[in-house]
Amino acid sequence: MTDSAYELYYWHPLPGRGEFVRLLLEQAVLPYRDVARAAHAEGGSGVDVVLDILKDANAPVPPFAPPILKSGEHLIAQTANICQFLARKHDLPGSEDIEAAIALQLQLTIMDVTAEAHDTHHPVSVALRYEEQRDAARERSAAFKQDRIPKFMRYFERVLERSGHPFFLGDEVCYADLSLFQLVEGLRYAFPNRMKEVEPDLGRVRAVVERVSSLPRVAAYLASDRRLSFNEHGIFRHYPELDEA
Amino acid sequence: MTDSAYELYYWHPLPGRGEFVRLLLEQAVLPYRDVARAAHAEGGSGVDVVLDILKDANAPVPPFAPPILKSGEHLIAQTANICQFLARKHDLPGSEDIEAAIALQLQLTIMDVTAEAHDTHHPVSVALRYEEQRDAARERSAAFKQDRIPKFMRYFERVLERSGHPFFLGDEVCYADLSLFQLVEGLRYAFPNRMKEVEPDLGRVRAVVERVSSLPRVAAYLASDRRLSFNEHGIFRHYPELDEA
Repeated sequence: MTDSAYELYYWHPLPGRGEFVRLLLEQAVLPYRDVARAAHAEGGSGVDVVLDILKDANAPVPPFAPPILKSGEHLIAQTANICQFLARKHDLPGSEDIEAAIALQLQLTIMDVTAEAHDTHHPVSVALRYEEQRDAARERSAAFKQDRIPKFMRYFERVLERSGHPFFLGDEVCYADLSLFQLVEGLRYAFPNRMKEVEPDLGRVRAVVERVSSLPRVAAYLASDRRLSFNEHGIFRHYPELDEA
Repeated sequence: MTDSAYELYYWHPLPGRGEFVRLLLEQAVLPYRDVARAAHAEGGSGVDVVLDILKDANAPVPPFAPPILKSGEHLIAQTANICQFLARKHDLPGSEDIEAAIALQLQLTIMDVTAEAHDTHHPVSVALRYEEQRDAARERSAAFKQDRIPKFMRYFERVLERSGHPFFLGDEVCYADLSLFQLVEGLRYAFPNRMKEVEPDLGRVRAVVERVSSLPRVAAYLASDRRLSFNEHGIFRHYPELDEA
């Protein structure tokens, strides 16, 4: 960590949307301090430092919600926006010309699936616990598994087929590929039975997931204790009753 | 309309997410052909041309859903991505440096509210009609009105307070200001009772809505027959039973 390191703020210990940003920071070897996690490791709260930065009265533009990336005096929020900000600032794939629009388009679609995956366990209100909205969660999960998972996944399969390359934009991995990996891993965690049914038709998506997890820097990250495992506080949650046929 | 005009594809006659793009095209005086609307005016379907372009086998990157902007050979999808694409291509406010990240961050937060507004009438599944999920819709609407509308709206109020300018980025309107106008108008249409309760605390937001609607090109557009009115096929729907206290 250096003085010029980024600071990442995200609810600890949820991988959640923070993990899409972490994968990019790790793959691009950008120094960062995982602030809520560090606070938690030092005996503090993994939540209070996030609440504090949300209220930061000195930020030129306040963020609505984490993940938040602190870059100098600026607080950058919205997952896809953070990814694009980093790509542009560090000349990563997906930062210029039409590729900027393609990468952002795909990232935003990945974030849409992510939001829908969240709503399978919170279809009524984020102010209620899962147990208070379980009936609606069963209904929403059924529709998500039946209609939405195959529709979204076949879409990414079709994009990769048109691309004809190992990754979305070509031979080099871009932030949307890293996020596709995280999305598929999250869906495998939350809905293992359903994913077993749909994955046979997703050869190209599975290949990207394999390629991402084999990138040396990603592989080192996944094997490290910096990688947070999925859990039932996050976006991708495994409730067996929601994964039943 | 010229040969170099953009083509916009969106389900007709829903204003929906297409309207955020139209407002930008109109304010920036960018020639465009509203394809589904034109097809409908010529006696065809306002839906089939959208379905056709979604299946377009020649597009380098297929879109997942409308709105879709055709620019040369490219199909650009995802509302916020289209706005940023146009801003960058035509050097509009919110296209460069940190302002690009600020505008996109705000636009994405506006799109998040928009998605939540949609889910008030479709909390379970987009494959079911509203009438088939009315009980869940009542619950979700209650939470949206009670918690989410004030939380999001006070956030935009706070951003404008920090900005200290007539618009988000300064004296010039950017795409996120245009979209804030559309969002507030949509919420006023869908939940007039609730908006009457929260608007007194939203002086800066209301001022932006006023300023946007008074921009000469926006005012001319709103008075034209190109402007689609809100209706119960769109994202912002008025069901009296969902607006009750």
